[in-house]
Amino acid sequence: MKILILGAAGMVGRKLAQRLAKDGRIGGIPISRVIMHDIVMPTAPAAAPFSCECLASDFAMAGGAEKLLIARPDVIFHLAAIVSGEAEADFEKGYHINLDGTRNLFDAIRRIGDGYCPRVVFTSSIAVFGAPFPEAIGDEFFNTPLTSYGTQKTIGELLLADYTRKGFFDGIGIRLPTICVRPGLPNKAASGFFSNICREPLAGKEAVLPVSDEVMHWHASPRAAVGFLIHAAMIDGAKVGPRRNLTMPGLACTIGEQIEALRKIGGEKVVARIRRERDPVIEKIVAGWPRKFDAKRAQALGFRAESSFEDILKVHIEDELGGKIA
Amino acid sequence: MKILILGAAGMVGRKLAQRLAKDGRIGGIPISRVIMHDIVMPTAPAAAPFSCECLASDFAMAGGAEKLLIARPDVIFHLAAIVSGEAEADFEKGYHINLDGTRNLFDAIRRIGDGYCPRVVFTSSIAVFGAPFPEAIGDEFFNTPLTSYGTQKTIGELLLADYTRKGFFDGIGIRLPTICVRPGLPNKAASGFFSNICREPLAGKEAVLPVSDEVMHWHASPRAAVGFLIHAAMIDGAKVGPRRNLTMPGLACTIGEQIEALRKIGGEKVVARIRRERDPVIEKIVAGWPRKFDAKRAQALGFRAESSFEDILKVHIEDELGGKIA
Repeated sequence: MKILILGAAGMVGRKLAQRLAKDGRIGGIPISRVIMHDIVMPTAPAAAPFSCECLASDFAMAGGAEKLLIARPDVIFHLAAIVSGEAEADFEKGYHINLDGTRNLFDAIRRIGDGYCPRVVFTSSIAVFGAPFPEAIGDEFFNTPLTSYGTQKTIGELLLADYTRKGFFDGIGIRLPTICVRPGLPNKAASGFFSNICREPLAGKEAVLPVSDEVMHWHASPRAAVGFLIHAAMIDGAKVGPRRNLTMPGLACTIGEQIEALRKIGGEKVVARIRRERDPVIEKIVAGWPRKFDAKRAQALGFRAESSFEDILKVHIEDELGGKIA
Repeated sequence: MKILILGAAGMVGRKLAQRLAKDGRIGGIPISRVIMHDIVMPTAPAAAPFSCECLASDFAMAGGAEKLLIARPDVIFHLAAIVSGEAEADFEKGYHINLDGTRNLFDAIRRIGDGYCPRVVFTSSIAVFGAPFPEAIGDEFFNTPLTSYGTQKTIGELLLADYTRKGFFDGIGIRLPTICVRPGLPNKAASGFFSNICREPLAGKEAVLPVSDEVMHWHASPRAAVGFLIHAAMIDGAKVGPRRNLTMPGLACTIGEQIEALRKIGGEKVVARIRRERDPVIEKIVAGWPRKFDAKRAQALGFRAESSFEDILKVHIEDELGGKIA
């Protein structure tokens, strides 16, 4: 099995490559080769039992996608994207990578012809939905994105479904929940605090909470996200049917519930490291975000996420902190 | 008021230009100039009280859209499209015109900058929806097109909403019902029979009905379609809000009800000209089409269609047959 990962230098891409290296197989089939691509040079996972190539280029430029397909990968994970904030700030760059790049990749696969029909796993986002929402967003709720990023991801989903319908490849789009707990440094993304208030206190540092305890959001761990990708890579397309884009399962959880889970796991000393400082700008942005989904289809298809925030914290402590809390 | 019509050689584009020529104004404001564009040379309406330019070119080619905007039209009707059957048969041509052409037009407007912010009325289609459907498709039902044409129209809708949100122009997308009774010669489009079984018998000719009397579909007259366009051109964008794409009202009507209306208007001799000859291929295609909508938002915003199939037939007899039935 040959695998191509676009966006392999990102957090989820790296974790996916590490998981593939650890397993050595996908869906029971041995992996012979992994090609890792990004705009900056990705890092191959340590001790991979397969050959691993790392490439850096702009896949959205003419001819950029063709080069990545020379090995005819059986599975293509398309995780490359300009993220929400940057796509909103730089309109042309967002459309260049998120729309033209995705279409270039899809067209490069289509033009190969000769029966080549790889599984393409495309990471979409809950940003394809825009307020106002029902209490829980069902699988048939319509796409009315309120950002350029959400628009571009929705267009990617539509292209994926049409190219799959035409038999050019076999695509599955997965709409990831907000990934929590995100490892690394605190960032200024409006959604950063959901992770910051867990990661920083667990590491002995202070974190700022800019919204009220009642704010509810939709989460899954990085480990769950990698699980979604691997499950999507091997799922039977016939069971998915023509509606190729799936809202992934996740956990709807309030900030108050996040903090309670943190207290159970780390005690009062950890929770005391959260400093409450309301930020009306962030509160307004977050008010327009989805809170909860009813991801029936994906669950029926075997996608699994955490069912408690304690489990999400335990994943972080195991995978990032070597089991230790500060 | 300066108006640009793309797709002005098509049936709806022609009728729109004729209506503008008859009215001389739009929303009470005098029209000074109309630019009619298509891939083939459009025909200016007779006796227009404004200057009328006709242009033929491929607006999807680089630089093609800019030329159409030199006069800085206040209202742009974007009706240009490769139709459903052709977009399905010629994948690249469909994407070239329906996606690249639309995006070129939108980007050409965006690049003008300097506060230029025209109203853009984009004709979308009920092909943005794909089976299975609820009994009546509501305003929040999701887009899962099952054709490349439907995919391209959905992408056009998404771009329209995003460019409007960013303030590059002020767009309204309208999803037209199937237009019935279509004037002209019978065509081989799978949907052609809905019009054929009215137009041909009313003109003294035989028509073939390839499906059962129970088939239900969603109709509006050409006159109603022109009314939608003109209403969309002048509607207050603030009342529409960020969800810029609207399912137009129409009439859900079975073939049996179509024939009954024909009988009331034309009598037994007209109905006798319909020959029943089931075609399993067409039956299968039609089974995947929307049957009925609940177009609440558009109705609340003042869009109006016919409320009986007799009214649809009367429009055809008045507008196309000079009031006379054969």
